[in-house]
Amino acid sequence: TGLTHVRADGSAHMVDVSAKPETSREATAEAVLATRPDVVAMLAEGTLPKGDALAVARIAGIMAAKKTPELIPLCHPLPLAKATVDFEPDAAAGTVRILATVKTRGVTGVEMEALTAATVAALALYDMTKAVDKHAEIGSVRVLAKTGGKSGDWSVAP
Amino acid sequence: TGLTHVRADGSAHMVDVSAKPETSREATAEAVLATRPDVVAMLAEGTLPKGDALAVARIAGIMAAKKTPELIPLCHPLPLAKATVDFEPDAAAGTVRILATVKTRGVTGVEMEALTAATVAALALYDMTKAVDKHAEIGSVRVLAKTGGKSGDWSVAP
Amino acid sequence: TGLTHVRADGSAHMVDVSAKPETSREATAEAVLATRPDVVAMLAEGTLPKGDALAVARIAGIMAAKKTPELIPLCHPLPLAKATVDFEPDAAAGTVRILATVKTRGVTGVEMEALTAATVAALALYDMTKAVDKHAEIGSVRVLAKTGGKSGDWSVAP
Amino acid sequence: TGLTHVRADGSAHMVDVSAKPETSREATAEAVLATRPDVVAMLAEGTLPKGDALAVARIAGIMAAKKTPELIPLCHPLPLAKATVDFEPDAAAGTVRILATVKTRGVTGVEMEALTAATVAALALYDMTKAVDKHAEIGSVRVLAKTGGKSGDWSVAP
Amino acid sequence: TGLTHVRADGSAHMVDVSAKPETSREATAEAVLATRPDVVAMLAEGTLPKGDALAVARIAGIMAAKKTPELIPLCHPLPLAKATVDFEPDAAAGTVRILATVKTRGVTGVEMEALTAATVAALALYDMTKAVDKHAEIGSVRVLAKTGGKSGDWSVAP
Amino acid sequence: TGLTHVRADGSAHMVDVSAKPETSREATAEAVLATRPDVVAMLAEGTLPKGDALAVARIAGIMAAKKTPELIPLCHPLPLAKATVDFEPDAAAGTVRILATVKTRGVTGVEMEALTAATVAALALYDMTKAVDKHAEIGSVRVLAKTGGKSGDWSVAP
Repeated sequence: TGLTHVRADGSAHMVDVSAKPETSREATAEAVLATRPDVVAMLAEGTLPKGDALAVARIAGIMAAKKTPELIPLCHPLPLAKATVDFEPDAAAGTVRILATVKTRGVTGVEMEALTAATVAALALYDMTKAVDKHAEIGSVRVLAKTGGKSGDWSVAP
Repeated sequence: TGLTHVRADGSAHMVDVSAKPETSREATAEAVLATRPDVVAMLAEGTLPKGDALAVARIAGIMAAKKTPELIPLCHPLPLAKATVDFEPDAAAGTVRILATVKTRGVTGVEMEALTAATVAALALYDMTKAVDKHAEIGSVRVLAKTGGKSGDWSVAP
Repeated sequence: TGLTHVRADGSAHMVDVSAKPETSREATAEAVLATRPDVVAMLAEGTLPKGDALAVARIAGIMAAKKTPELIPLCHPLPLAKATVDFEPDAAAGTVRILATVKTRGVTGVEMEALTAATVAALALYDMTKAVDKHAEIGSVRVLAKTGGKSGDWSVAP
Repeated sequence: TGLTHVRADGSAHMVDVSAKPETSREATAEAVLATRPDVVAMLAEGTLPKGDALAVARIAGIMAAKKTPELIPLCHPLPLAKATVDFEPDAAAGTVRILATVKTRGVTGVEMEALTAATVAALALYDMTKAVDKHAEIGSVRVLAKTGGKSGDWSVAP
Repeated sequence: TGLTHVRADGSAHMVDVSAKPETSREATAEAVLATRPDVVAMLAEGTLPKGDALAVARIAGIMAAKKTPELIPLCHPLPLAKATVDFEPDAAAGTVRILATVKTRGVTGVEMEALTAATVAALALYDMTKAVDKHAEIGSVRVLAKTGGKSGDWSVAP
Repeated sequence: TGLTHVRADGSAHMVDVSAKPETSREATAEAVLATRPDVVAMLAEGTLPKGDALAVARIAGIMAAKKTPELIPLCHPLPLAKATVDFEPDAAAGTVRILATVKTRGVTGVEMEALTAATVAALALYDMTKAVDKHAEIGSVRVLAKTGGKSGDWSVAP
């Protein structure tokens, strides 16, 4: 098989999915922001009793999930039925793990939506911490699990 | 110092930059898509003599740079003066390195724009390769260099 | 019951609606712009025989209805089937009442879409009249009636 | 004087501001959500120790300020230099007052941006509380103060 | 019959399509960029062995198809199932013909989406060639064929 | 000289304009919708004493001018200072000529913004007339005049 979206002549298009059945589909993706322990502490608790930082990143991720077809050129628009973004701050390791889950009842999968949500939430965290750690890095951006669709359910080993 | 955008009461806002001088600013960021050697070969050349794949990802990255203030909630809108996205495919390693450079003449830096361009270009590559490698992973998302602004120029060691 | 979208831990997400049935749903909302009699006369007729002012506000409201999931962070995207915006100028009172009705065949209600349409139409009117009355005020932004969905039909007393 | 944006023939356009000087401009607007005391308590504190509700509405307002020229048809795009959204919940009265302040260094005022921020923040609060109070109402949407520009500084009486 | 979207009182709204059945619908539209032979040669091959120019215009057209309800005020949002953009450069004539095909499974036709895709692809080509030919012209923007919907299938004579 | 935006290796980017001076720039573009005399009469007057049709198309064009950098991939974002859209209906000929003028004080020209405004206004007219004339055609999309910038002022012969 070849690349998704790309025709034999090498040109890329939004491929026809009109014959695919609507089914319930879900995908979960992660991204990890690696910064310093003190920065994670700032983000998660500590000096910010009512801190908005994680809420800002969560909303950024959820809104980005809805924008996925505007960002990924050949992605089909889908009516998202659910989008959640959760954080697992690990102050000792100096990391924040972001978990995004997106669900639809549609004709294509939602891996790109989950990846986009996780990534943009991570970028929003970077934006809020860059004044204290300009060397933070985002990594481990990947799909963890997928259900629904003809390719079958799968998940990475925990 | 504390988190960018966050006030003493923990609430996050778009902070006042009206008194900052307009200067020429540039930032370069990278992201790395890790997939398989055969997938990188598909993306970069080989079976696709006129292949659009890298062009699609480049355009996705450049257009995302322009959308940064829509994606990152507390980011100031900036008039971008330049945005480039380059690819370094390494078929042996099974990776594609994405380099994004953004320039402005404005009052804030463009690290977020460069990071967003690199990340969305990487997500667009993932979108086109996910049918052949659903376990691809994006990592090493970070700022490589920055010039302009009062915090001074810096770059990571090569 | 508690707040829509908010989980027990206080975090807010776009909740799962994938199991809800698609039904025909409609909502009507209003907003009232309170300004001066002479300004209402300018908007509605009088000196502007072919005046675009109300048409501009109507289009602003209809286009905003389509943007609702981009504006309201936890709102689900919906395929709108109808959006109308009507005006009831009352020159004696110096007010313009805006009535917006939105309809969908979907899994959630369209109150937010109707409220957004009414509100943005009111803001567009304010924008066109602010040079002559900077003290205009928008009020009475509320849902007037709703049909469809499991919560049942209701309307406010006339 | 007549309506902003409207020509003598009644047609509405985005008027020429290219000759206006760039100055620092700021506007503050308010909107008030009127609901029930128990709902305000839910939003502001009480049962939600780490509640995201106000943060969600704040981000909605700030992001909407940046979208103002997309929403208000004849509004000029402006490089926003600051946008803040604050809440004054009054549980006894069952109200939440929203205060939005926007600043720019540009050629037009930012009243529309401040009004849009206040209004969309209010709509986002409504969205989160509509399951517990479908009869909530938004009112008192108005500009409180403006500085900069040739029309002079002004503010409403407190 | 009268104008689509316009009521008897002359006001224009997004009309109710909630009772229309979902069917598979497709439309193809064209636009023609007329420039000089040497410019067409630059776009299509010749000096640009790996040239991105046509890919850029193709992506612009496909992404614009998805934005149609944001651009055309009274257009209903639709879940696009397919969007392709093809080019027929004719170096001898100095023209590039753009063919856009859009498909949906929805309640309204997709002529506007196909026209928007063809037009924006043509504008993107103009943008890349304007430094060498500022007098290029876009014409022949029209629907070539339509299938699905109650108005029946039709196509223009070849 | 070669294509705007395209590097020697054939890849297309948003080129660096940070060293260009800010000057006042204006461009006017046209597009012509060719339909039937009775349709033009419907659009322009006749049966629609308060008809919104032209106002809808005007607003569509003005809002599209502001969206140009979102639509044309390599176009720089610019702070538009003015955007007007005018119509010259010719019922005898069955045509509506659309004239769009855009002005900025910026570092690049606004031809693309004027062309986009004229084109999208024409598409919006097509959308409202397609039920009565599905064979309407848009043509003559071109720049009529340009002032400002180093390439000098020019206009087409009337």
